[in-house]
Amino acid sequence: MAGKICFGIDVGGTTIKCGMFRTDGTVLDKWEIPTRTENGGEQILPDIAAAVHGRIQVNGFEEKQITGIGIGIPGPVRAGKVPVAVNLHWGEKDVAKELEALTGFPVRVANDANAAALGEMWKGAGEGRKNVIMITLGTGVGCGVIINEQIVEGANGAGGEVGHMHVSDDLDEPCNCGNKGCLEQFCSATGIARLARVSLAEHPETESVLRDGKPDAKAVFDAYKEGDALAESVVREFADLLGTALSSVAVVTDPEVIVIGGGVSKAGEVLTDIVGRYYRQKVFSSCAGTPVVLAKLGNDAGIYGAARMVI
Amino acid sequence: MAGKICFGIDVGGTTIKCGMFRTDGTVLDKWEIPTRTENGGEQILPDIAAAVHGRIQVNGFEEKQITGIGIGIPGPVRAGKVPVAVNLHWGEKDVAKELEALTGFPVRVANDANAAALGEMWKGAGEGRKNVIMITLGTGVGCGVIINEQIVEGANGAGGEVGHMHVSDDLDEPCNCGNKGCLEQFCSATGIARLARVSLAEHPETESVLRDGKPDAKAVFDAYKEGDALAESVVREFADLLGTALSSVAVVTDPEVIVIGGGVSKAGEVLTDIVGRYYRQKVFSSCAGTPVVLAKLGNDAGIYGAARMVI
Repeated sequence: MAGKICFGIDVGGTTIKCGMFRTDGTVLDKWEIPTRTENGGEQILPDIAAAVHGRIQVNGFEEKQITGIGIGIPGPVRAGKVPVAVNLHWGEKDVAKELEALTGFPVRVANDANAAALGEMWKGAGEGRKNVIMITLGTGVGCGVIINEQIVEGANGAGGEVGHMHVSDDLDEPCNCGNKGCLEQFCSATGIARLARVSLAEHPETESVLRDGKPDAKAVFDAYKEGDALAESVVREFADLLGTALSSVAVVTDPEVIVIGGGVSKAGEVLTDIVGRYYRQKVFSSCAGTPVVLAKLGNDAGIYGAARMVI
Repeated sequence: MAGKICFGIDVGGTTIKCGMFRTDGTVLDKWEIPTRTENGGEQILPDIAAAVHGRIQVNGFEEKQITGIGIGIPGPVRAGKVPVAVNLHWGEKDVAKELEALTGFPVRVANDANAAALGEMWKGAGEGRKNVIMITLGTGVGCGVIINEQIVEGANGAGGEVGHMHVSDDLDEPCNCGNKGCLEQFCSATGIARLARVSLAEHPETESVLRDGKPDAKAVFDAYKEGDALAESVVREFADLLGTALSSVAVVTDPEVIVIGGGVSKAGEVLTDIVGRYYRQKVFSSCAGTPVVLAKLGNDAGIYGAARMVI
């Protein structure tokens, strides 16, 4: 087969998602391999190199057609290097250099949330835009900031660490990061479940379907859709905090679009509707028209964005 | 004289500051002309064009040596155009196109706070850095966000409108922007004076030197330096809000340095000390080492930054 191709790799704690792309964004092949974290995760990059070389052969490409490999990592990234990636059992690692040596191809490295944001900009909910914020509501809260089609990596690899924006002085529980009152403690799936537990305990007199079963983020949004009053108050608290945080992000970079992804976003447009409402209440008037929309690429955003980095 | 030169222009409501620079940043000439806002400010750009042409002749340069004119405007700017600039009595204006037609030189346009941030990056407190946040505490709160040596203009010209970050749900007075609870309502010179008035009224029993004379921002910081308890509580409230807001900015773009300028910054290092302390308490650990420093260029930051845009 003719034409230029590239690879987008999204490394997670249990699975490595891999994509082979034409440089126009067409997916040629998509597969997964397990993440071998044993022995300090020393097999992760060799496994990726082997997978890439294998697929080039299987698909009948020549090495000269490959523009490079983009790779997203669950951890901070600065100039191709990772200081630490807890979920991969990595300490300091020069990912770009090691994977280039293993494959012979140019390698670009990014934090996985940043790569996902670039993916949504390229072929997802931000297609056709150059300035995008993407927030990922999963176990934690990830965020990627794209300006002029480039990931904002930051001086310490902490660009887009919006999950650790300080949003409350009133929380005494510590966040995983060590601070107290981070956005992630309220607006991740875990945070929403916590808000629900607190609300159930504080209002023992209020009937709610959330008293039956596990009041996780999905249950909260399901109950909200059915008009459950307690779920509604939880969703309002969540949406106020997230909408306000997004309004703070907007007055810094003034994006063209704000994309919400991650497991929690499976709640659908009821989520973007209410978050968008609080966002518009709080934000500077010039940014009030900025759309708040659902992500489109799901779990593939990371491989798209990783591939985009080497185009 | 030989070598390439350029102009940096900073347009204010009463005065236009002008600078003639070598492209290495050496100032060759610096002067001011009045801002003629009558008749919808129609004379402003012709006055600038005349001033520029005059200085080229006076200083013995040739037109071919001029790389261009950078200009900072007190209002939003998007792609060289200004939708409205109240202080200049301008409605929509294609500043770049008009000034290019008047002068024959390339023109770049930016919001004045953004230009000042670029100036501090180039030759001020951010010299040698590429990623800078500058916050200007004057009558209002201005901010410029620089990433990879470029101004973040934003999709609506609202990049760096951090003065309108929502920081409080508890304020019922409206901001000039129409919202309530903007950073500017607390941390501008006007905001600090308001905090002082509120505090004096709420604590009639507390002795304070601020009860004598006008409790403006300068008086508050002077009293704070002398250990006045009420001034200290006002400064703490100010520093908590500003430090927290800067921590929110930091988790978006993760700058190398945060620069504080404007009239309020004349209070000196006591200001950056206490704002930095609250910043470090609230910010994500990766960004805790980011220095919070005083601006260096004073009122010249705008002309430096404007000039830098055409180099």
